[in-house]
Amino acid sequence: MMYNRVALIGLGLIASSMFWAMKRANVAGEVTGFARTQETRDTARRIGLCDRVCDSVAEAVEGADLIVLCVPVGAMGAIAAEMAPHLAPGATVTDVGSVKRAVIDAVGPHLPEGVHFVPGHPMAGTEHSGPESGFAELFDNRWCLLVPTEGSDPAAVARLRSYWEALGSNVEEMEPERHDLVCAVTSHAPHLIAYTMVGVADDLGRVTDSEVVKFSAAGFRDFTRIAASDPTMWRDVFLTNKDATLEILGRFTEELFALQRAIRTGDGDHLHDYFTRTRAIRRGIIEAGQDTDAPDFGRGGVR
Amino acid sequence: MMYNRVALIGLGLIASSMFWAMKRANVAGEVTGFARTQETRDTARRIGLCDRVCDSVAEAVEGADLIVLCVPVGAMGAIAAEMAPHLAPGATVTDVGSVKRAVIDAVGPHLPEGVHFVPGHPMAGTEHSGPESGFAELFDNRWCLLVPTEGSDPAAVARLRSYWEALGSNVEEMEPERHDLVCAVTSHAPHLIAYTMVGVADDLGRVTDSEVVKFSAAGFRDFTRIAASDPTMWRDVFLTNKDATLEILGRFTEELFALQRAIRTGDGDHLHDYFTRTRAIRRGIIEAGQDTDAPDFGRGGVR
Repeated sequence: MMYNRVALIGLGLIASSMFWAMKRANVAGEVTGFARTQETRDTARRIGLCDRVCDSVAEAVEGADLIVLCVPVGAMGAIAAEMAPHLAPGATVTDVGSVKRAVIDAVGPHLPEGVHFVPGHPMAGTEHSGPESGFAELFDNRWCLLVPTEGSDPAAVARLRSYWEALGSNVEEMEPERHDLVCAVTSHAPHLIAYTMVGVADDLGRVTDSEVVKFSAAGFRDFTRIAASDPTMWRDVFLTNKDATLEILGRFTEELFALQRAIRTGDGDHLHDYFTRTRAIRRGIIEAGQDTDAPDFGRGGVR
Repeated sequence: MMYNRVALIGLGLIASSMFWAMKRANVAGEVTGFARTQETRDTARRIGLCDRVCDSVAEAVEGADLIVLCVPVGAMGAIAAEMAPHLAPGATVTDVGSVKRAVIDAVGPHLPEGVHFVPGHPMAGTEHSGPESGFAELFDNRWCLLVPTEGSDPAAVARLRSYWEALGSNVEEMEPERHDLVCAVTSHAPHLIAYTMVGVADDLGRVTDSEVVKFSAAGFRDFTRIAASDPTMWRDVFLTNKDATLEILGRFTEELFALQRAIRTGDGDHLHDYFTRTRAIRRGIIEAGQDTDAPDFGRGGVR
């Protein structure tokens, strides 16, 4: 066993997937779980999510040697304050938040001396949420970024790395500011853009009846999947990674205006050059093994 | 046989998929093909694409009772003018362009009396292009929109409908202006937005080395797939569906600014409400049968 007792705080998509992945890999003696609402705790008990579902944070973290914060980023500070007096000396606290600087600032100050804090970010997810949305394969071959803080114990970091590898992930370490910028580009800004486009279509959907939905083609359908992600989680991501997200969106708007102008003025060469350049980065992603190149990729049976 | 001889003008993703789907369904006596470049014609001959690959448009359309224009929208007018003198009386001319008003205006005037013009748009594609990218299943369960012009012969429309159904599509008819607006919302604007975001990331990619590519997460990876689509085809789409695309992009920019302001001012309620609303439209798409709801949808092995 890598850890004798693992406490999952918050029981949504990531925590429930971690539980099933831990069972698959047999890396934890006992897994306790806590969720804020009675409804989620009832669901967890009904489906066998966690070896023991607890009615308080204190009970869940008692005697745990790994505590994983799986609540929205905006809720982590309060949870950290609540659990701090009950943490066992030598325990490791980690999290799964999509933003790292804000989590470090919110959680770090509450943790007592002798507890190891190793922030993390498994880069995996679906558009589904809640305790019933998890599955053991979610982390397979996906990146998990560890963002150790100054003074993180190297042994605790190494142990957490082995744990995530056992759950199927590829693990790398990164500085918090760099993490937040890379995620703003690759995930946070694209999500906001997808949310926006789906909102625009929804307005127009009333104009054109159900045709927008009925004939939604590849581009838009991918956007709707992204835009179906958990609202609370994403609200917190944007509010806590504000600067990097706004910087990327500013650049995005600049570029979009240039392309709009090219369309308006009929500058076909500008458009063609731009689209040729973007094709190349896709090639890079396939070569980096982050996606497949199958000709019917992602279409499945009914798309 | 639904048609004795089908001529495919242009041999890219759509035409090559049509060929393999025609063979699967056995709906055409002979399929001829023409491509502008010697290289494409050589490739087609090598892989057995088309029963007969022709070196001129005139030869390809000679005696055909169905002619399908599969070239970029901007090239259709010139091709129509070139083939017009060689069309057999009673033949049907259709196309597969993503824009319909501009195609009708460019192609229609060239066609002689006694030839039926029934514009079409199979709403299917991948990010791949060229004669080797086609596959017989591309149109299965996808929409094909027929956009008959004033005076289109009902019998010719009905025959073309049966043909696309045999290739696997669900067929509906639509007015050209409505078609162009619906596609601007569901496909054209989302594509431009994806192109833009990938371009921004590409600029930043140089700053953060290969991390943008390496850690590209769900949102961004979907964008790169969209943004890898054929540059010439998309240049022509934006130039020929200019008004509808610019209108949608204008609304998009308005909404994006409102969300950016909500982030800047920390208005979490606004963000949460917006994201909750966009989640509902996704539900509508799943209920309309346009996508699957599987928890690991689209992830495949390596995502």
